[in-house]
Amino acid sequence: MGKGAQGSDAAAGAGEVEENMAAWLVAKNTLKIMPFKLPPLGPHDVRVRMKAVGICGSDVHYLREMRIAHFVVKEPMVIGHECAGVIEEVGAGVTHLSVGDRVALEPGVSCWRCRHCKGGRYNLCSDMKFFATPPVHGSLANQVVHPGDLCFKLPDGVTLEEGAMCEPLSVGVHACRRAGVGPETGVLVVGAGPIGLVTLLAARAFGAPRVVIVDVDDHRLSVATALGAAATVKVSTRDEDLDAEVERIQAAMGSDIDVSLDCAGFSKTMSTALEATRAGGKVCLVGMGHNEMTLPMTSAAAREVDVVGVFRYKDTWPLCIDFLRSGKVDVKPLITHRFGFSQRDVEEAFEVSARGRDAIKVMFNL
Amino acid sequence: MGKGAQGSDAAAGAGEVEENMAAWLVAKNTLKIMPFKLPPLGPHDVRVRMKAVGICGSDVHYLREMRIAHFVVKEPMVIGHECAGVIEEVGAGVTHLSVGDRVALEPGVSCWRCRHCKGGRYNLCSDMKFFATPPVHGSLANQVVHPGDLCFKLPDGVTLEEGAMCEPLSVGVHACRRAGVGPETGVLVVGAGPIGLVTLLAARAFGAPRVVIVDVDDHRLSVATALGAAATVKVSTRDEDLDAEVERIQAAMGSDIDVSLDCAGFSKTMSTALEATRAGGKVCLVGMGHNEMTLPMTSAAAREVDVVGVFRYKDTWPLCIDFLRSGKVDVKPLITHRFGFSQRDVEEAFEVSARGRDAIKVMFNL
Amino acid sequence: MGKGAQGSDAAAGAGEVEENMAAWLVAKNTLKIMPFKLPPLGPHDVRVRMKAVGICGSDVHYLREMRIAHFVVKEPMVIGHECAGVIEEVGAGVTHLSVGDRVALEPGVSCWRCRHCKGGRYNLCSDMKFFATPPVHGSLANQVVHPGDLCFKLPDGVTLEEGAMCEPLSVGVHACRRAGVGPETGVLVVGAGPIGLVTLLAARAFGAPRVVIVDVDDHRLSVATALGAAATVKVSTRDEDLDAEVERIQAAMGSDIDVSLDCAGFSKTMSTALEATRAGGKVCLVGMGHNEMTLPMTSAAAREVDVVGVFRYKDTWPLCIDFLRSGKVDVKPLITHRFGFSQRDVEEAFEVSARGRDAIKVMFNL
Amino acid sequence: MGKGAQGSDAAAGAGEVEENMAAWLVAKNTLKIMPFKLPPLGPHDVRVRMKAVGICGSDVHYLREMRIAHFVVKEPMVIGHECAGVIEEVGAGVTHLSVGDRVALEPGVSCWRCRHCKGGRYNLCSDMKFFATPPVHGSLANQVVHPGDLCFKLPDGVTLEEGAMCEPLSVGVHACRRAGVGPETGVLVVGAGPIGLVTLLAARAFGAPRVVIVDVDDHRLSVATALGAAATVKVSTRDEDLDAEVERIQAAMGSDIDVSLDCAGFSKTMSTALEATRAGGKVCLVGMGHNEMTLPMTSAAAREVDVVGVFRYKDTWPLCIDFLRSGKVDVKPLITHRFGFSQRDVEEAFEVSARGRDAIKVMFNL
Repeated sequence: MGKGAQGSDAAAGAGEVEENMAAWLVAKNTLKIMPFKLPPLGPHDVRVRMKAVGICGSDVHYLREMRIAHFVVKEPMVIGHECAGVIEEVGAGVTHLSVGDRVALEPGVSCWRCRHCKGGRYNLCSDMKFFATPPVHGSLANQVVHPGDLCFKLPDGVTLEEGAMCEPLSVGVHACRRAGVGPETGVLVVGAGPIGLVTLLAARAFGAPRVVIVDVDDHRLSVATALGAAATVKVSTRDEDLDAEVERIQAAMGSDIDVSLDCAGFSKTMSTALEATRAGGKVCLVGMGHNEMTLPMTSAAAREVDVVGVFRYKDTWPLCIDFLRSGKVDVKPLITHRFGFSQRDVEEAFEVSARGRDAIKVMFNL
Repeated sequence: MGKGAQGSDAAAGAGEVEENMAAWLVAKNTLKIMPFKLPPLGPHDVRVRMKAVGICGSDVHYLREMRIAHFVVKEPMVIGHECAGVIEEVGAGVTHLSVGDRVALEPGVSCWRCRHCKGGRYNLCSDMKFFATPPVHGSLANQVVHPGDLCFKLPDGVTLEEGAMCEPLSVGVHACRRAGVGPETGVLVVGAGPIGLVTLLAARAFGAPRVVIVDVDDHRLSVATALGAAATVKVSTRDEDLDAEVERIQAAMGSDIDVSLDCAGFSKTMSTALEATRAGGKVCLVGMGHNEMTLPMTSAAAREVDVVGVFRYKDTWPLCIDFLRSGKVDVKPLITHRFGFSQRDVEEAFEVSARGRDAIKVMFNL
Repeated sequence: MGKGAQGSDAAAGAGEVEENMAAWLVAKNTLKIMPFKLPPLGPHDVRVRMKAVGICGSDVHYLREMRIAHFVVKEPMVIGHECAGVIEEVGAGVTHLSVGDRVALEPGVSCWRCRHCKGGRYNLCSDMKFFATPPVHGSLANQVVHPGDLCFKLPDGVTLEEGAMCEPLSVGVHACRRAGVGPETGVLVVGAGPIGLVTLLAARAFGAPRVVIVDVDDHRLSVATALGAAATVKVSTRDEDLDAEVERIQAAMGSDIDVSLDCAGFSKTMSTALEATRAGGKVCLVGMGHNEMTLPMTSAAAREVDVVGVFRYKDTWPLCIDFLRSGKVDVKPLITHRFGFSQRDVEEAFEVSARGRDAIKVMFNL
Repeated sequence: MGKGAQGSDAAAGAGEVEENMAAWLVAKNTLKIMPFKLPPLGPHDVRVRMKAVGICGSDVHYLREMRIAHFVVKEPMVIGHECAGVIEEVGAGVTHLSVGDRVALEPGVSCWRCRHCKGGRYNLCSDMKFFATPPVHGSLANQVVHPGDLCFKLPDGVTLEEGAMCEPLSVGVHACRRAGVGPETGVLVVGAGPIGLVTLLAARAFGAPRVVIVDVDDHRLSVATALGAAATVKVSTRDEDLDAEVERIQAAMGSDIDVSLDCAGFSKTMSTALEATRAGGKVCLVGMGHNEMTLPMTSAAAREVDVVGVFRYKDTWPLCIDFLRSGKVDVKPLITHRFGFSQRDVEEAFEVSARGRDAIKVMFNL
């Protein structure tokens, strides 16, 4: 891209800044579409016109509570972090992207100076700036400015909506990587909500020969079956059913459960995972239902069933995009609802998403 | 060793069988020294005259309860599994040992046909025959027959008592291996009982630059200091003190706690370990206080603090012996009490061991 | 199976011993079908009626040279090690197999006493007894006796010929495991002979999104394309073409080559692999053309391109069988020739196999 | 540090820029001390007054040849990259360092945008800016400006010269990490030059129970013995001695050689490493004598002896400093010559370093 082009683009960009609108979380249960001033474009940044933005459970949680754990929304904040769009401007130092490229955005910018960043686990960076994690603004906006190396070009045949789905899919991909899922891994997924479903898709794409999934809800289980679960087991929320359910789960697998991925995150779901997994296997805690859990830890540890945690993801976009390109993963069935970007759209979309169940992924088309 | 010699030795062995005495667990709180008939010597077996046998907490537990978890003592069983002795006879296929060699014995014989055995995790073998785990007899006896490949020659300068200490030391070594302790690992050990102390020694030998240890007991902490702990922190058993204690523990370390080894195994000790460990670190559950634990799992998992379990050990004797030979580990201060092998000795020794605290390791000299 | 049945079966087995015929390597270029007395059935052994036995390059090599490296055929030896058959008798301790089961046989019996066996790398056992590696007899025979834990039941839908193909496929599987091939791995296979082709199949089954394969022979490359290679590159045997070929190979991949598997084993093929692989990637030496190689080692090492070796395989049969069952691997196109088990069949089959090229896998149906 | 102080410091810094002198490589065999204008201090940068700078073999190589591989000195370039000094100014965003802190400098600044940087292998970054690798200036200067996160505070008791030695020591540390050296690793070091010696020191600090070192030179071997080698073996440069030498090396170890570190980098040294290492062990190529090597690759690969390469290091300074602080590594005996920073000093120092043998490390005290 020539400097002249950049110059005029920058000018155009400057002009557009006044019109850039975003969905702001201004108070509990209150989202407002208001102007959003973009920061200046750094040499390694790009400016992206957003085209597809999904709603995540954490977005809904911020809307309801104005906080998650110790992250508190103290000032109005632009919401949204599952997104894809089209490049409108590239910084002088960006060589791998051009104006017009369709890209999916990885939402977190880490410091690159701490031990985690240097050691290849940048998702653990305590100085991470992450879309829509206060006080950092999110991406449900007409345009955002973002580091170019966190924007990944989508190949022909992968839509912008699929690009936005790289974010939730990344959670499943990171979990499968940390748990070591591969063609020799019998996988149990506990919970068939949106995260359970993307984890199922990821496990299949990593080659898991057989994924059994459990949930309390028949509809969710039927979706999981359609998405490739080898077997489903309906369970209850009652602790006293646990032993019998573990037996049914193991029978449904028919062979060793090498890895269990708890995508719910409660005492019972995690206990189920720990008990069902074979000696020497792994349990990965993906969902975050409750913090405190009462678990049969000693019997699990004495079988050397390890517990691995996941926090978001790292380095997942290229793989997600390749899974989408090759058809190993099809996220399209997960997108159940679509909205535009009016004030009313935003309000309705979050309501639909919050209601849950038949809404898996709610997507804005901007 | 010539075949003729073996033949006459075998005959001698047969003669000696009548006199072989062992400590039998015959009923709750009742140990009796009675004759113990040795099995025939297989081609890969050796016959060992026991010289040093230590008492383990699990031995005491069987004596008190006649069971541990689902292992139940239904028939009288010879007790004891921490042991070393002198080779008296070798099978025809044993080439690495000779009569007169001083050896430490690894107590578990696995099947070598299951996935765990073939995959290098033979400690998880569900068909393991382990000294003094019912219905398998132990090694507190004048002589035992054991596979030669589980008998490890002691070099000059390593005593038979030290040889017997390879067993408890192996627990610490296996924990350090599983947790990845090395010269870059700041280590927290929770609990300064016998297992906590061997784990401290192992962590030091693996190069941990700084080991902080915590306990509720001042005497134990002073022993830990003498054994090389960089700092000690006295804690309470009250849950409400946890946050403040974690702060004191982290201050005592002065840098990241990369690995925590919970050698107690209770909700509070494990919670302490989970909270104190840095993001991306590991917690290893070594002690087995309670099975059910109430833990802050989600916050730990969200920092990718992994939990690894340990069951006994595998392939640890050569390393333990090298640690003892080189002086990297000195287990001698752990041996606090010594007994002979009369009926009265056995009764007293178990009483002393059960009373705990100032008794760390109680050793029989046969 | 009742003990009575076993007893009478054993008697029947004794009767059949006189008729058990095998293909003996008696001198250079001379194979003779002669009686082969079976060893007694141990408690963990099974007796298998062979149904499908493939010819491996090493079999041909022994026939031509009476040796491979330091393994020398000094006494007549039964040949053959790629095999599957039907269980005719099971030892008293065998519980996972029954008479009539169709099984694939893993050919090597290791000692289970050495560091390699205990450490999970039993393929490196220096005391391995391996079918048709002198002085151990092979399996091209009507019947063999083999440890039950090395016989793997074939599910419905997997043929006995496919079962025999587990052996060569295992070489590719072990190479892919050691090199860490997965869904994020761009793979180069150098050499499209039988081992190159099974390695291609294995890499695809491990999820490699794109496998480029190179060879000097157009026919082989066309077979590779039919088996799923993403691109093929025809190369020469001339050293001076190397740089240009590496460029063409990298262009054919279109993205990073993360892992290269050299299935030929010559200076030029290995140099190609080293040069083509990205910094931080891995080269796996699978083929064994020449021992001495002249290689650009420093420039490879300075990009931290690691070289991993493979020796046979370990623990691969369950995965191979699952790949065949699920259709992730289809080995049937590799079986190009079939023979019976007459003296003339054996002679012709080895001639066809030795001639190479259009013969990929030559199979005996016994 | 207050902003005011920073401001005036910056002013002082600006004043000092005129006097900043550096050793420039201006032509083959020609170094000249000339003024060196510092770049502006970025918010995450620090300005360091150099106190100790060592001469590396690569510095000498650039002086003699004006190139290493494809790195060519086309413009005058400041030399030097092994260094430590005192902080004189910190950027506004630097919080972990203060004026007056004594620091060791990691010389390479990577891009943090490529796959290697994000994946935790930033040493492989192809966009690395590295002291005295053309066209980037080095650190043999009164002052340099450098990113604060690459400056590591030295504790009391670690001298600035020791701080400068972190750079060569890092090579040994990185090699030991990549090869997995620990308390269970019998280590062979091939070559007792400066890199061989720091590798020996690193291997000892990683807990290697026994390090055998080989060289062609008696003096070097005697230095190695003084530094902690368990045994030394004098070897020749003649290929025909290799087999006998390997036997002597293995005898000198007395047990398995698990890891060999070739710190020379020639066909014979690497062949020695490959042949001497046990099945399943690792050979690490550290030295860079010749690019092309003729090696017994197939026999090594068939024993699954892996070859790992190293390129510089990553994340090694904290560990090196801890090794120095704790006394696990003593680099002081390696510093054989010291010089001031006059034109004549620089010329003489490089001559002494180039002459080699009794000069191990030549150090400038600025």
